[in-house]
Amino acid sequence: MELITSLTNAKVKMALSLQQKKYRDKYQLFILEGIRNAEMVIAKNISVQMCFFTQKAFTNERGKSILEQLKCPCFEVPEHIYQKISDTQSPQGLMLILPIQNHNLDDLATINKSGLYLILDRLQDPGNIGTIIRTADAMGVKAIICLNGTADIYSPKVVRSAMGSLFNLPIITKISEQDLLSFCQNHNLTLYATALDNSAKASWDISYPQYCAIILGNEANGVSDNLLDKCNAKIYIPMKGNAESLNVANAGSMIMYEYCRQNI
Amino acid sequence: MELITSLTNAKVKMALSLQQKKYRDKYQLFILEGIRNAEMVIAKNISVQMCFFTQKAFTNERGKSILEQLKCPCFEVPEHIYQKISDTQSPQGLMLILPIQNHNLDDLATINKSGLYLILDRLQDPGNIGTIIRTADAMGVKAIICLNGTADIYSPKVVRSAMGSLFNLPIITKISEQDLLSFCQNHNLTLYATALDNSAKASWDISYPQYCAIILGNEANGVSDNLLDKCNAKIYIPMKGNAESLNVANAGSMIMYEYCRQNI
Repeated sequence: MELITSLTNAKVKMALSLQQKKYRDKYQLFILEGIRNAEMVIAKNISVQMCFFTQKAFTNERGKSILEQLKCPCFEVPEHIYQKISDTQSPQGLMLILPIQNHNLDDLATINKSGLYLILDRLQDPGNIGTIIRTADAMGVKAIICLNGTADIYSPKVVRSAMGSLFNLPIITKISEQDLLSFCQNHNLTLYATALDNSAKASWDISYPQYCAIILGNEANGVSDNLLDKCNAKIYIPMKGNAESLNVANAGSMIMYEYCRQNI
Repeated sequence: MELITSLTNAKVKMALSLQQKKYRDKYQLFILEGIRNAEMVIAKNISVQMCFFTQKAFTNERGKSILEQLKCPCFEVPEHIYQKISDTQSPQGLMLILPIQNHNLDDLATINKSGLYLILDRLQDPGNIGTIIRTADAMGVKAIICLNGTADIYSPKVVRSAMGSLFNLPIITKISEQDLLSFCQNHNLTLYATALDNSAKASWDISYPQYCAIILGNEANGVSDNLLDKCNAKIYIPMKGNAESLNVANAGSMIMYEYCRQNI
Protein backbone atom coordinates (compact mmCIF):
# COMPACT_ATOMS: atom_id res chain seq x y z
CA MET A 1 0.00 0.00 0.00
CA GLU A 2 1.45 3.24 -1.22
CA LEU A 3 1.06 6.60 0.52
CA ILE A 4 0.18 9.54 -1.75
CA THR A 5 0.51 13.00 -0.23
CA SER A 6 0.23 15.29 -3.25
CA LEU A 7 -2.91 16.62 -4.92
CA THR A 8 -0.97 16.73 -8.18
CA ASN A 9 -0.34 12.98 -8.17
CA ALA A 10 -1.70 11.56 -11.44
CA LYS A 11 -3.94 8.99 -9.75
CA VAL A 12 -5.41 11.56 -7.39
CA LYS A 13 -6.01 13.93 -10.31
CA MET A 14 -7.77 11.16 -12.25
CA ALA A 15 -9.98 10.33 -9.24
CA LEU A 16 -10.82 14.01 -8.79
CA SER A 17 -11.79 14.29 -12.46
CA LEU A 18 -14.37 11.50 -12.01
CA GLN A 19 -16.70 14.00 -10.37
CA GLN A 20 -17.35 15.17 -13.94
CA LYS A 21 -19.33 13.14 -16.44
CA LYS A 22 -16.94 13.78 -19.34
CA TYR A 23 -14.08 12.15 -17.45
CA ARG A 24 -16.23 9.25 -16.26
CA ASP A 25 -17.04 8.71 -19.94
CA LYS A 26 -13.43 9.10 -20.98
CA TYR A 27 -11.93 6.72 -18.38
CA GLN A 28 -15.05 4.50 -18.13
CA LEU A 29 -14.65 4.62 -14.37
CA PHE A 30 -16.72 5.84 -11.44
CA ILE A 31 -16.41 6.27 -7.68
CA LEU A 32 -18.16 4.21 -5.02
CA GLU A 33 -17.72 5.24 -1.41
CA GLY A 34 -18.27 3.67 1.96
CA ILE A 35 -17.54 0.51 3.91
CA ARG A 36 -20.87 -1.19 3.28
CA ASN A 37 -20.65 -0.62 -0.46
CA ALA A 38 -17.08 -1.94 -0.52
CA GLU A 39 -18.13 -5.08 1.37
CA MET A 40 -20.83 -5.65 -1.22
CA VAL A 41 -18.37 -5.21 -4.10
CA ILE A 42 -16.10 -7.84 -2.53
CA ALA A 43 -19.00 -10.21 -1.83
CA LYS A 44 -20.19 -9.89 -5.42
CA ASN A 45 -16.67 -10.27 -6.77
CA ILE A 46 -16.92 -7.07 -8.81
CA SER A 47 -13.65 -5.98 -10.39
CA VAL A 48 -12.08 -2.89 -8.80
CA GLN A 49 -9.58 -0.60 -10.54
CA MET A 50 -8.11 1.02 -7.44
CA CYS A 51 -8.87 2.10 -3.90
CA PHE A 52 -8.15 5.24 -1.89
CA PHE A 53 -8.36 5.22 1.89
CA THR A 54 -7.41 7.25 4.94
CA GLN A 55 -6.02 6.18 8.31
CA LYS A 56 -9.61 6.34 9.57
CA ALA A 57 -10.66 3.41 7.38
CA PHE A 58 -7.59 1.44 8.37
CA THR A 59 -8.31 1.79 12.09
CA ASN A 60 -11.85 0.48 11.52
CA GLU A 61 -12.05 -3.35 11.75
CA ARG A 62 -14.36 -3.67 8.73
CA GLY A 63 -12.31 -1.14 6.74
CA LYS A 64 -9.11 -3.02 7.52
CA SER A 65 -10.64 -6.32 6.47
CA ILE A 66 -11.76 -4.80 3.17
CA LEU A 67 -8.27 -3.45 2.48
CA GLU A 68 -6.83 -6.89 3.14
CA GLN A 69 -9.28 -8.54 0.74
CA LEU A 70 -9.04 -6.09 -2.15
CA LYS A 71 -6.87 -7.35 -4.99
CA CYS A 72 -6.45 -3.92 -6.65
CA PRO A 73 -3.83 -1.24 -5.94
CA CYS A 74 -4.75 0.58 -2.69
CA PHE A 75 -3.49 4.09 -1.96
CA GLU A 76 -3.48 5.76 1.41
CA VAL A 77 -4.13 9.51 1.25
CA PRO A 78 -4.29 12.17 3.95
CA GLU A 79 -7.71 13.36 5.11
CA HIS A 80 -7.60 16.65 3.12
CA ILE A 81 -6.94 14.87 -0.18
CA TYR A 82 -9.67 12.31 0.50
CA GLN A 83 -12.12 15.12 1.27
CA LYS A 84 -11.33 16.72 -2.10
CA ILE A 85 -12.11 13.56 -4.06
CA SER A 86 -15.08 12.57 -1.91
CA ASP A 87 -18.62 13.71 -2.52
CA THR A 88 -19.89 12.86 0.98
CA GLN A 89 -20.03 15.13 3.99
CA SER A 90 -18.84 12.66 6.62
CA PRO A 91 -16.81 10.15 4.62
CA GLN A 92 -15.75 6.85 6.14
CA GLY A 93 -12.40 7.19 4.40
CA LEU A 94 -12.73 4.38 1.88
CA MET A 95 -13.44 4.74 -1.82
CA LEU A 96 -13.28 2.36 -4.74
CA ILE A 97 -12.73 3.29 -8.39
CA LEU A 98 -14.77 0.87 -10.48
CA PRO A 99 -15.21 0.23 -14.20
CA ILE A 100 -18.53 1.44 -15.60
CA GLN A 101 -20.74 -1.51 -16.49
CA ASN A 102 -21.94 -1.22 -20.05
CA HIS A 103 -25.10 -3.15 -20.78
CA ASN A 104 -27.10 -2.94 -23.96
CA LEU A 105 -30.55 -3.96 -25.10
CA ASP A 106 -29.19 -7.15 -26.65
CA ASP A 107 -28.25 -8.34 -23.15
CA LEU A 108 -31.94 -8.24 -22.28
CA ALA A 109 -32.89 -10.34 -25.26
CA THR A 110 -31.47 -13.34 -23.44
CA ILE A 111 -33.72 -12.69 -20.44
CA ASN A 112 -36.87 -14.84 -20.35
CA LYS A 113 -39.93 -12.91 -21.43
CA SER A 114 -41.02 -12.19 -17.90
CA GLY A 115 -41.01 -9.55 -15.25
CA LEU A 116 -41.19 -5.78 -15.05
CA TYR A 117 -38.93 -3.40 -16.98
CA LEU A 118 -38.63 0.23 -15.96
CA ILE A 119 -37.91 2.96 -18.52
CA LEU A 120 -36.60 6.38 -17.42
CA ASP A 121 -37.42 9.10 -19.97
CA ARG A 122 -35.03 12.03 -19.47
CA LEU A 123 -35.12 12.04 -15.68
CA GLN A 124 -32.83 14.80 -14.38
CA ASP A 125 -32.61 14.64 -10.62
CA PRO A 126 -29.80 12.31 -9.43
CA GLY A 127 -31.56 11.71 -6.10
CA ASN A 128 -34.70 10.58 -7.93
CA ILE A 129 -32.77 8.28 -10.24
CA GLY A 130 -30.82 6.71 -7.36
CA THR A 131 -33.95 6.16 -5.31
CA ILE A 132 -35.75 4.61 -8.28
CA ILE A 133 -32.84 2.21 -8.84
CA ARG A 134 -32.94 1.19 -5.16
CA THR A 135 -36.72 0.72 -5.16
CA ALA A 136 -36.64 -1.15 -8.48
CA ASP A 137 -34.06 -3.51 -7.04
CA ALA A 138 -36.16 -4.08 -3.90
CA MET A 139 -39.28 -4.77 -5.96
CA GLY A 140 -37.57 -7.24 -8.28
CA VAL A 141 -37.56 -5.14 -11.47
CA LYS A 142 -35.74 -7.06 -14.26
CA ALA A 143 -33.87 -4.14 -15.81
CA ILE A 144 -33.88 -0.36 -16.07
CA ILE A 145 -33.57 1.33 -19.45
CA CYS A 146 -32.45 4.99 -19.43
CA LEU A 147 -33.43 6.91 -22.54
CA ASN A 148 -31.15 9.54 -24.07
CA GLY A 149 -31.26 12.71 -21.98
CA THR A 150 -31.51 10.93 -18.62
CA ALA A 151 -28.87 12.11 -16.13
CA ASP A 152 -25.75 9.99 -15.71
CA ILE A 153 -26.34 7.00 -13.44
CA TYR A 154 -22.68 7.02 -12.40
CA SER A 155 -22.72 10.52 -10.91
CA PRO A 156 -21.77 10.51 -7.21
CA LYS A 157 -25.30 11.49 -6.13
CA VAL A 158 -27.01 8.69 -8.07
CA VAL A 159 -24.45 6.16 -6.86
CA ARG A 160 -24.94 7.31 -3.26
CA SER A 161 -28.74 7.24 -3.28
CA ALA A 162 -28.87 3.92 -5.16
CA MET A 163 -27.13 2.39 -2.10
CA GLY A 164 -25.48 -0.51 -3.88
CA SER A 165 -28.48 -1.47 -6.01
CA LEU A 166 -26.57 -0.31 -9.09
CA PHE A 167 -24.98 -3.77 -9.20
CA ASN A 168 -28.11 -5.80 -8.62
CA LEU A 169 -29.93 -5.30 -11.90
CA PRO A 170 -28.86 -4.38 -15.44
CA ILE A 171 -29.19 -0.67 -16.23
CA ILE A 172 -29.03 0.10 -19.93
CA THR A 173 -28.22 3.68 -20.85
CA LYS A 174 -28.19 5.95 -23.93
CA ILE A 175 -31.14 4.31 -25.66
CA SER A 176 -33.19 6.21 -28.25
CA GLU A 177 -36.99 6.20 -28.27
CA GLN A 178 -36.87 4.35 -31.57
CA ASP A 179 -34.61 1.63 -30.19
CA LEU A 180 -36.90 1.21 -27.22
CA LEU A 181 -39.99 0.96 -29.39
CA SER A 182 -38.33 -1.57 -31.72
CA PHE A 183 -37.22 -3.60 -28.72
CA CYS A 184 -40.75 -3.65 -27.30
CA GLN A 185 -42.17 -4.69 -30.66
CA ASN A 186 -39.57 -7.38 -31.29
CA HIS A 187 -40.02 -8.86 -27.84
CA ASN A 188 -43.78 -8.43 -27.44
CA LEU A 189 -43.21 -6.20 -24.43
CA THR A 190 -46.38 -4.34 -23.40
CA LEU A 191 -45.49 -0.70 -22.79
CA TYR A 192 -47.20 1.60 -20.26
CA ALA A 193 -46.43 5.28 -19.79
CA THR A 194 -47.22 7.54 -16.86
CA ALA A 195 -49.28 10.53 -17.93
CA LEU A 196 -51.27 13.33 -16.33
CA ASP A 197 -53.98 13.75 -18.96
CA ASN A 198 -57.59 12.62 -18.77
CA SER A 199 -57.22 9.76 -21.20
CA ALA A 200 -54.96 7.93 -18.74
CA LYS A 201 -56.29 5.10 -16.56
CA ALA A 202 -55.88 4.90 -12.79
CA SER A 203 -52.97 2.60 -11.99
CA TRP A 204 -55.24 0.33 -9.90
CA ASP A 205 -57.61 -0.09 -12.86
CA ILE A 206 -54.90 -1.53 -15.11
CA SER A 207 -54.29 -5.27 -15.21
CA TYR A 208 -50.53 -5.37 -15.53
CA PRO A 209 -49.37 -8.47 -17.38
CA GLN A 210 -46.54 -10.30 -15.66
CA TYR A 211 -44.24 -9.27 -18.57
CA CYS A 212 -44.41 -5.52 -19.22
CA ALA A 213 -42.56 -2.20 -19.17
CA ILE A 214 -43.48 1.12 -17.56
CA ILE A 215 -42.10 4.53 -18.55
CA LEU A 216 -41.49 7.21 -15.89
CA GLY A 217 -41.13 10.71 -17.32
CA ASN A 218 -39.00 13.81 -16.87
CA GLU A 219 -39.68 15.72 -13.61
CA ALA A 220 -41.05 18.82 -15.36
CA ASN A 221 -42.37 17.57 -18.68
CA GLY A 222 -43.33 13.95 -18.15
CA VAL A 223 -43.04 11.27 -20.83
CA SER A 224 -42.43 12.48 -24.40
CA ASP A 225 -45.46 12.91 -26.68
CA ASN A 226 -44.07 10.37 -29.10
CA LEU A 227 -43.86 7.66 -26.45
CA LEU A 228 -47.27 8.57 -25.01
CA ASP A 229 -48.59 8.10 -28.51
CA LYS A 230 -46.95 4.76 -29.13
CA CYS A 231 -47.41 3.06 -25.74
CA ASN A 232 -50.10 0.44 -25.14
CA ALA A 233 -51.80 2.40 -22.37
CA LYS A 234 -51.36 5.56 -20.31
CA ILE A 235 -51.55 5.34 -16.53
CA TYR A 236 -51.77 7.84 -13.67
CA ILE A 237 -51.96 7.89 -9.89
CA PRO A 238 -55.27 9.38 -8.73
CA MET A 239 -54.63 12.22 -6.27
CA LYS A 240 -57.27 13.56 -3.94
CA GLY A 241 -55.25 16.16 -2.12
CA ASN A 242 -53.92 19.62 -2.88
CA ALA A 243 -50.38 18.92 -4.04
CA GLU A 244 -50.03 19.56 -7.74
CA SER A 245 -47.97 16.49 -8.42
CA LEU A 246 -46.12 13.57 -6.94
CA ASN A 247 -42.37 13.30 -6.98
CA VAL A 248 -41.44 10.88 -9.79
CA ALA A 249 -39.59 8.50 -7.46
CA ASN A 250 -42.69 8.22 -5.27
CA ALA A 251 -45.07 7.84 -8.22
CA GLY A 252 -42.70 5.17 -9.54
CA SER A 253 -42.76 3.38 -6.17
CA MET A 254 -46.55 3.28 -6.22
CA ILE A 255 -46.62 1.82 -9.72
CA MET A 256 -44.00 -0.80 -8.93
CA TYR A 257 -46.00 -1.69 -5.81
CA GLU A 258 -49.19 -2.07 -7.88
CA TYR A 259 -47.42 -4.29 -10.38
CA CYS A 260 -46.08 -6.48 -7.55
CA ARG A 261 -49.45 -6.63 -5.81
CA GLN A 262 -51.00 -7.98 -9.00
CA ASN A 263 -48.13 -10.31 -9.87
CA ILE A 264 -47.03 -11.97 -6.63
CA MET B 1 -39.41 49.06 0.65
CA GLU B 2 -36.23 49.57 2.56
CA LEU B 3 -32.75 48.70 1.28
CA ILE B 4 -30.49 46.82 3.71
CA THR B 5 -26.82 46.57 2.77
CA SER B 6 -25.18 45.33 5.96
CA LEU B 7 -24.82 41.77 7.20
CA THR B 8 -24.90 43.12 10.75
CA ASN B 9 -28.39 44.57 10.33
CA ALA B 10 -30.61 43.08 13.06
CA LYS B 11 -33.24 41.76 10.64
CA VAL B 12 -30.63 40.11 8.42
CA LYS B 13 -28.99 38.57 11.48
CA MET B 14 -32.34 37.24 12.65
CA ALA B 15 -33.07 35.74 9.20
CA LEU B 16 -29.62 34.15 9.12
CA SER B 17 -30.19 32.61 12.54
CA LEU B 18 -33.31 30.82 11.26
CA GLN B 19 -31.08 28.24 9.58
CA GLN B 20 -30.72 26.83 13.10
CA LYS B 21 -33.52 25.02 14.89
CA LYS B 22 -32.92 26.74 18.22
CA TYR B 23 -33.58 30.14 16.68
CA ARG B 24 -36.61 28.91 14.73
CA ASP B 25 -37.94 27.71 18.09
CA LYS B 26 -37.02 30.97 19.83
CA TYR B 27 -38.54 33.31 17.24
CA GLN B 28 -41.27 30.87 16.13
CA LEU B 29 -40.41 31.79 12.53
CA PHE B 30 -39.13 29.94 9.48
CA ILE B 31 -37.99 30.72 5.93
CA LEU B 32 -39.86 29.91 2.73
CA GLU B 33 -38.15 30.64 -0.56
CA GLY B 34 -39.19 30.98 -4.17
CA ILE B 35 -41.74 32.69 -6.37
CA ARG B 36 -44.17 29.77 -6.59
CA ASN B 37 -44.23 29.30 -2.83
CA ALA B 38 -44.79 33.03 -2.29
CA GLU B 39 -47.69 33.01 -4.77
CA MET B 40 -49.24 30.16 -2.83
CA VAL B 41 -48.83 31.98 0.48
CA ILE B 42 -50.63 35.00 -0.98
CA ALA B 43 -53.38 32.86 -2.52
CA LYS B 44 -53.95 31.11 0.80
CA ASN B 45 -53.82 34.39 2.70
CA ILE B 46 -51.14 33.10 5.07
CA SER B 47 -49.73 35.75 7.39
CA VAL B 48 -46.16 36.80 6.54
CA GLN B 49 -43.76 38.42 9.03
CA MET B 50 -41.35 39.94 6.52
CA CYS B 51 -39.84 39.50 3.08
CA PHE B 52 -36.31 39.78 1.70
CA PHE B 53 -35.71 40.15 -2.02
CA THR B 54 -33.03 41.04 -4.53
CA GLN B 55 -33.19 43.15 -7.70
CA LYS B 56 -33.53 39.85 -9.59
CA ALA B 57 -36.97 39.18 -8.04
CA PHE B 58 -38.08 42.73 -8.70
CA THR B 59 -37.23 42.53 -12.40
CA ASN B 60 -39.31 39.34 -12.70
CA GLU B 61 -43.00 40.05 -13.48
CA ARG B 62 -44.29 37.43 -11.04
CA GLY B 63 -41.81 38.53 -8.37
CA LYS B 64 -42.84 42.18 -8.78
CA SER B 65 -46.51 41.28 -8.49
CA ILE B 66 -45.83 39.34 -5.27
CA LEU B 67 -43.96 42.29 -3.78
CA GLU B 68 -46.87 44.56 -4.63
CA GLN B 69 -49.37 42.24 -2.96
CA LEU B 70 -47.46 41.45 0.23
CA LYS B 71 -48.72 43.42 3.22
CA CYS B 72 -45.64 42.77 5.38
CA PRO B 73 -42.40 44.80 5.55
CA CYS B 74 -40.27 44.00 2.46
CA PHE B 75 -36.50 44.51 2.46
CA GLU B 76 -34.29 44.65 -0.59
CA VAL B 77 -30.84 43.14 -0.04
CA PRO B 78 -27.83 42.81 -2.32
CA GLU B 79 -27.18 39.41 -3.90
CA HIS B 80 -24.32 38.46 -1.52
CA ILE B 81 -26.49 39.01 1.57
CA TYR B 82 -29.37 37.07 0.06
CA GLN B 83 -27.03 34.18 -0.75
CA LYS B 84 -25.91 34.09 2.89
CA ILE B 85 -29.46 33.75 4.21
CA SER B 86 -30.64 31.44 1.44
CA ASP B 87 -30.38 27.68 1.54
CA THR B 88 -30.82 27.18 -2.22
CA GLN B 89 -28.13 26.98 -4.86
CA SER B 90 -29.83 29.10 -7.55
CA PRO B 91 -32.17 31.32 -5.56
CA GLN B 92 -34.88 33.31 -7.32
CA GLY B 93 -34.19 36.20 -4.95
CA LEU B 94 -37.41 36.13 -2.94
CA MET B 95 -37.84 34.80 0.57
CA LEU B 96 -40.61 35.07 3.12
CA ILE B 97 -40.25 34.83 6.88
CA LEU B 98 -43.37 33.12 8.21
CA PRO B 99 -44.72 32.28 11.66
CA ILE B 100 -44.48 28.59 12.57
CA GLN B 101 -47.92 27.02 12.62
CA ASN B 102 -48.52 25.26 15.91
CA HIS B 103 -51.15 22.55 15.74
CA ASN B 104 -51.91 20.12 18.52
CA LEU B 105 -53.79 16.86 18.83
CA ASP B 106 -56.88 18.69 20.14
CA ASP B 107 -57.20 20.38 16.73
CA LEU B 108 -57.70 16.93 15.21
CA ALA B 109 -60.46 16.07 17.65
CA THR B 110 -62.74 18.38 15.68
CA ILE B 111 -62.02 16.48 12.46
CA ASN B 112 -64.71 13.95 11.53
CA LYS B 113 -63.66 10.42 12.29
CA SER B 114 -62.56 9.71 8.75
CA GLY B 115 -59.54 9.53 6.54
CA LEU B 116 -55.91 8.50 6.86
CA TYR B 117 -53.51 9.86 9.48
CA LEU B 118 -49.77 9.46 9.05
CA ILE B 119 -47.45 9.16 12.07
CA LEU B 120 -43.71 9.80 11.74
CA ASP B 121 -41.70 8.02 14.43
CA ARG B 122 -38.31 9.73 14.82
CA LEU B 123 -37.63 10.20 11.09
CA GLN B 124 -34.30 11.95 10.64
CA ASP B 125 -33.73 12.76 6.98
CA PRO B 126 -35.18 16.17 6.03
CA GLY B 127 -35.53 15.10 2.39
CA ASN B 128 -37.57 12.06 3.42
CA ILE B 129 -39.80 14.11 5.70
CA GLY B 130 -40.42 16.77 3.05
CA THR B 131 -41.21 14.18 0.39
CA ILE B 132 -43.59 12.36 2.73
CA ILE B 133 -45.42 15.63 3.47
CA ARG B 134 -45.76 16.31 -0.28
CA THR B 135 -46.97 12.77 -1.03
CA ALA B 136 -49.36 12.79 1.95
CA ASP B 137 -50.83 16.03 0.66
CA ALA B 138 -51.26 14.59 -2.84
CA MET B 139 -52.92 11.44 -1.52
CA GLY B 140 -55.38 13.31 0.70
CA VAL B 141 -53.92 12.38 4.11
CA LYS B 142 -55.90 14.18 6.87
CA ALA B 143 -52.99 15.07 9.15
CA ILE B 144 -49.40 14.16 9.95
CA ILE B 145 -48.30 13.57 13.53
CA CYS B 146 -44.56 13.82 14.23
CA LEU B 147 -43.46 11.98 17.36
CA ASN B 148 -40.73 13.36 19.62
CA GLY B 149 -37.35 12.83 18.01
CA THR B 150 -38.50 13.48 14.45
CA ALA B 151 -36.38 16.12 12.68
CA ASP B 152 -37.71 19.69 12.56
CA ILE B 153 -40.31 20.13 9.81
CA TYR B 154 -39.37 23.81 9.48
CA SER B 155 -35.74 23.19 8.50
CA PRO B 156 -34.90 24.65 5.07
CA LYS B 157 -34.48 21.18 3.53
CA VAL B 158 -37.85 19.89 4.71
CA VAL B 159 -39.57 23.11 3.63
CA ARG B 160 -37.94 22.91 0.20
CA SER B 161 -38.76 19.27 -0.47
CA ALA B 162 -42.32 19.61 0.85
CA MET B 163 -42.90 22.07 -2.03
CA GLY B 164 -45.69 24.07 -0.39
CA SER B 165 -47.58 21.07 0.99
CA LEU B 166 -46.62 22.21 4.51
CA PHE B 167 -49.66 24.50 4.40
CA ASN B 168 -52.13 22.03 2.99
CA LEU B 169 -52.60 19.69 5.90
CA PRO B 170 -52.14 20.00 9.66
CA ILE B 171 -48.78 18.72 10.92
CA ILE B 172 -48.67 18.15 14.65
CA THR B 173 -45.21 17.97 16.20
CA LYS B 174 -43.57 17.04 19.53
CA ILE B 175 -46.06 14.30 20.42
CA SER B 176 -45.10 11.54 22.85
CA GLU B 177 -45.87 7.87 22.19
CA GLN B 178 -48.22 7.92 25.15
CA ASP B 179 -50.14 10.94 23.83
CA LEU B 180 -50.48 9.25 20.44
CA LEU B 181 -51.74 6.01 21.98
CA SER B 182 -54.24 7.87 24.19
CA PHE B 183 -55.44 9.84 21.18
CA CYS B 184 -55.96 6.65 19.15
CA GLN B 185 -57.85 5.04 22.02
CA ASN B 186 -60.03 8.08 22.73
CA HIS B 187 -60.91 8.50 19.07
CA ASN B 188 -61.19 4.84 18.06
CA LEU B 189 -58.40 5.29 15.56
CA THR B 190 -57.07 1.96 14.24
CA LEU B 191 -53.27 2.07 14.32
CA TYR B 192 -50.94 0.27 11.88
CA ALA B 193 -47.16 0.24 12.09
CA THR B 194 -44.63 -0.60 9.41
CA ALA B 195 -42.36 -3.43 10.51
CA LEU B 196 -39.78 -5.75 9.02
CA ASP B 197 -40.38 -8.84 11.13
CA ASN B 198 -42.18 -12.03 10.13
CA SER B 199 -45.29 -11.36 12.16
CA ALA B 200 -46.15 -8.39 9.91
CA LYS B 201 -48.77 -8.71 7.16
CA ALA B 202 -48.19 -7.74 3.53
CA SER B 203 -49.68 -4.29 2.94
CA TRP B 204 -51.94 -5.66 0.20
CA ASP B 205 -53.37 -8.28 2.58
CA ILE B 206 -54.59 -5.65 5.04
CA SER B 207 -58.10 -4.22 4.72
CA TYR B 208 -57.48 -0.63 5.69
CA PRO B 209 -60.58 0.91 7.25
CA GLN B 210 -61.44 4.32 5.82
CA TYR B 211 -60.51 5.85 9.23
CA CYS B 212 -57.05 4.74 10.35
CA ALA B 213 -53.47 5.77 11.11
CA ILE B 214 -50.18 4.36 9.86
CA ILE B 215 -46.79 4.78 11.57
CA LEU B 216 -43.62 5.13 9.49
CA GLY B 217 -40.43 4.49 11.43
CA ASN B 218 -36.93 5.87 11.80
CA GLU B 219 -34.64 5.26 8.79
CA ALA B 220 -32.25 2.98 10.67
CA ASN B 221 -34.30 1.51 13.50
CA GLY B 222 -37.89 1.49 12.27
CA VAL B 223 -40.90 1.98 14.54
CA SER B 224 -40.25 1.78 18.31
CA ASP B 225 -40.85 -1.57 20.04
CA ASN B 226 -43.45 -0.01 22.30
CA LEU B 227 -45.54 1.20 19.35
CA LEU B 228 -45.09 -2.09 17.48
CA ASP B 229 -46.42 -3.76 20.60
CA LYS B 230 -49.42 -1.49 21.00
CA CYS B 231 -50.55 -1.05 17.38
CA ASN B 232 -53.54 -2.95 15.94
CA ALA B 233 -51.48 -4.63 13.23
CA LYS B 234 -47.98 -4.63 11.75
CA ILE B 235 -47.56 -4.23 8.02
CA TYR B 236 -44.70 -4.59 5.55
CA ILE B 237 -44.01 -4.23 1.84
CA PRO B 238 -43.04 -7.59 0.32
CA MET B 239 -39.74 -7.26 -1.55
CA LYS B 240 -38.58 -9.79 -4.09
CA GLY B 241 -35.31 -8.16 -5.10
CA ASN B 242 -31.87 -7.80 -3.59
CA ALA B 243 -32.04 -4.38 -1.95
CA GLU B 244 -32.01 -4.73 1.81
CA SER B 245 -34.66 -2.13 2.39
CA LEU B 246 -36.83 0.52 0.84
CA ASN B 247 -36.34 4.21 1.50
CA VAL B 248 -38.97 5.23 4.07
CA ALA B 249 -40.49 7.89 1.79
CA ASN B 250 -40.99 5.29 -0.94
CA ALA B 251 -42.37 2.66 1.44
CA GLY B 252 -44.69 5.36 2.76
CA SER B 253 -45.83 6.18 -0.79
CA MET B 254 -46.70 2.56 -1.43
CA ILE B 255 -48.74 2.31 1.75
CA MET B 256 -50.60 5.56 1.08
CA TYR B 257 -51.29 4.28 -2.44
CA GLU B 258 -52.67 1.01 -1.06
CA TYR B 259 -54.90 2.86 1.39
CA CYS B 260 -56.24 5.06 -1.46
CA ARG B 261 -56.75 2.10 -3.76
CA GLN B 262 -58.94 0.44 -1.13
CA ASN B 263 -60.75 3.60 -0.10
CA ILE B 264 -61.54 5.54 -3.27
